[in-house]
Amino acid sequence: MAVKLSTGYVRASGYAHKVRRVLFALARKKVEPKEIIRASAELNQRIFEEFQRLNVSKEDVVRITVDFRIKDGSIVWDYDSLRIEVYRKGEEERLAKAMEEVEERERELEEKIKAIEEVALNLKKLTDELIERIEELKQEHTSLKLRAEE
Amino acid sequence: MAVKLSTGYVRASGYAHKVRRVLFALARKKVEPKEIIRASAELNQRIFEEFQRLNVSKEDVVRITVDFRIKDGSIVWDYDSLRIEVYRKGEEERLAKAMEEVEERERELEEKIKAIEEVALNLKKLTDELIERIEELKQEHTSLKLRAEE
Amino acid sequence: MAVKLSTGYVRASGYAHKVRRVLFALARKKVEPKEIIRASAELNQRIFEEFQRLNVSKEDVVRITVDFRIKDGSIVWDYDSLRIEVYRKGEEERLAKAMEEVEERERELEEKIKAIEEVALNLKKLTDELIERIEELKQEHTSLKLRAEE
Amino acid sequence: MAVKLSTGYVRASGYAHKVRRVLFALARKKVEPKEIIRASAELNQRIFEEFQRLNVSKEDVVRITVDFRIKDGSIVWDYDSLRIEVYRKGEEERLAKAMEEVEERERELEEKIKAIEEVALNLKKLTDELIERIEELKQEHTSLKLRAEE
Repeated sequence: MAVKLSTGYVRASGYAHKVRRVLFALARKKVEPKEIIRASAELNQRIFEEFQRLNVSKEDVVRITVDFRIKDGSIVWDYDSLRIEVYRKGEEERLAKAMEEVEERERELEEKIKAIEEVALNLKKLTDELIERIEELKQEHTSLKLRAEE
Repeated sequence: MAVKLSTGYVRASGYAHKVRRVLFALARKKVEPKEIIRASAELNQRIFEEFQRLNVSKEDVVRITVDFRIKDGSIVWDYDSLRIEVYRKGEEERLAKAMEEVEERERELEEKIKAIEEVALNLKKLTDELIERIEELKQEHTSLKLRAEE
Repeated sequence: MAVKLSTGYVRASGYAHKVRRVLFALARKKVEPKEIIRASAELNQRIFEEFQRLNVSKEDVVRITVDFRIKDGSIVWDYDSLRIEVYRKGEEERLAKAMEEVEERERELEEKIKAIEEVALNLKKLTDELIERIEELKQEHTSLKLRAEE
Repeated sequence: MAVKLSTGYVRASGYAHKVRRVLFALARKKVEPKEIIRASAELNQRIFEEFQRLNVSKEDVVRITVDFRIKDGSIVWDYDSLRIEVYRKGEEERLAKAMEEVEERERELEEKIKAIEEVALNLKKLTDELIERIEELKQEHTSLKLRAEE
């Protein structure tokens, strides 16, 4: 069964990340993350070639749709269904400006999420250290069952 | 180079755990936890046989010393050096009572440490879930580098 | 010194949240969160009245700018500088559609952030429990300095 | 209703900490930690005076029992019931040695618990930072309910 991927409106400069994010939302529970990364890279290469043929500039706004199937854990693109709409910045000034603002805001969001991820990874390290120290306490001061015994 | 393991004074009922705990303190950084568990089980079996020969009852207090070496990551007991002192409960009433109290207190300590370990393991689970959810957020809402790309 | 707040392009339905978010980004380090919430509610009420006067429908796209000053920890709006641009959905169909997509995506993002917040609050509860249990351990099994002694 | 506190066998040098620990185990759920600390300090002063009268040296082993009541959130000692048994080191050499070993082991345990406490307090700091950063994310990137609104 084919699924349709649609990027929605997005600046040409940001199409590749948008493709990948949408594909994650559609396929995460069905295929491995690595396959999503591979499949989006493949599609993005094809879109990039079309962009050159269509003379798309990075400030233009585009909307891309394409069908795909999942077969044996892989994503297979139906390139015949690939459709690219292009809205030139000069003609659609406000649309282009609005999408630029969206991009800018996403960059700020990314910085904050990255900072949260760092805190979470430090939490993980500390939690591992805590468990390690409790194991030491168990080894030298109790007769509790140890992890090495499990 | 030989190292001397000494249990200190301990009730006969608790010698096995005491041997293992002391061995962890002496050898943890030099051999694997599994080897410490194996080696203490081996020694404890030998001590158990001696106890039967000596007619030790579990309320008696004992003190055990023995030398060992570490060779290729294994602990090798020098059974010729094994020395077991036995203090009969009837004759050393206060010593026996004092060591019983120590054992009782260790049991209470174990319960508390076990409860702390459970909390720590739950912390670990939650931290893993947090990192998983942040990864999802990154996949669908950012162009940040994903773990699957590393 | 006056600061300019600009919502950027946003659907009329979402102007109030956008005003507040932008104000947090501009003023968080200078005034209390409560004042930001109060001041954005005040401005949003005024914008709402203008919307009714201008006959703005919620699918239209708007862009709002206004100057403000911070005086004694309060935000003071310069309503003379308030400027509202309106782009009617019928005439700016693609702009309206693009901003609707942005709103939709923000809703998904909010759900994920809310889930992460819940995990973090559970982590906090567990960490507090851990510290409580360690204090108990200290009280009954050690002579370490207690929190009640500090 | 009177409750009996008993230190069990303990070296004279460690009686004060033992009194406090046992009192925590008996009274924690009934009175405030501060009152336990105060009441044990009061009793320990009295025991100290008796030790001087009895010429107890710190290597001797003692066993102390005393009754107390809880009245209006305070611990009231019944000094008439105070009983101190003293076992001189010279006469009870093995008992004194055994209790010295117990003390030594408790010191090692304390160091490990202190290290675990430090890790837990760092976990707390990091968790607070995480929640702070998620609140920032909510303020600038979502319309979720903020803590300042609650």
